[in-house]
Amino acid sequence: MAETIFNRIIAGEVPCHKVYEDEWVLSFLDVGPLSVGHTLVIPKQAAEKLHQLSEESAAALGRALPRIAKAVMAVTGTSDYNILQNNGAAAHQAVMHVHFHISPKYPDGSGLGIGWKPGSLGNEQGAELAAKIAAKLR
Amino acid sequence: MAETIFNRIIAGEVPCHKVYEDEWVLSFLDVGPLSVGHTLVIPKQAAEKLHQLSEESAAALGRALPRIAKAVMAVTGTSDYNILQNNGAAAHQAVMHVHFHISPKYPDGSGLGIGWKPGSLGNEQGAELAAKIAAKLR
Repeated sequence: MAETIFNRIIAGEVPCHKVYEDEWVLSFLDVGPLSVGHTLVIPKQAAEKLHQLSEESAAALGRALPRIAKAVMAVTGTSDYNILQNNGAAAHQAVMHVHFHISPKYPDGSGLGIGWKPGSLGNEQGAELAAKIAAKLR
Repeated sequence: MAETIFNRIIAGEVPCHKVYEDEWVLSFLDVGPLSVGHTLVIPKQAAEKLHQLSEESAAALGRALPRIAKAVMAVTGTSDYNILQNNGAAAHQAVMHVHFHISPKYPDGSGLGIGWKPGSLGNEQGAELAAKIAAKLR
């Protein structure tokens, strides 16, 4: 995959406001925050999209997210927050290295904006689709 | 925490279109999908918000997400997708049991809508905030 700014941050060539680091994960403040405390959590593994991550890398991200979220909430005094991870330009991914956003949601509305236009899932359509996805996972 | 529909799905009292299950995690189709293939991934642990999860539960969710996302992409023929996990009513959480959304983003725009109004992080402000969050994580 192409070099990204996050590779350079991981390598220590570009500075960041680091909040956490372990063998697999690095976490630092987003420099273009949606709200105060907006934090990024990234794998050290160079992967563009989530489904390309190794199991170790993915599990380490899973472990780190709640811990970091808890610390961000404690420091910002917020209780509500969104975790967002975008894959692909159409899905709003800007840096092509996997990253999770933790963004506190404040009473003034600052934080992530969400557009939600739900459809409905027919029972037959649902059963067929679920069977196909389940088959891929066996 | 209060009983939710997800507890009843986990207990098998309410049916779902299941795609995956292991010791820690259950995954099934969202019945109000943002796009075809919209899938939920939830911990069996009853917790309202992400930062309340046990480490085992959080790591298991981290491990499961990329695997399930890969299967959803393969079946729907999409390449771009969002992972979203909302905490608290202000952050658009509707069912008060932790859940990750995997929603494919299609060329017709169906999928998650994102409102993004970034600010900027001053260097001094960033250093101070990061130090406070890092201190909570030590």
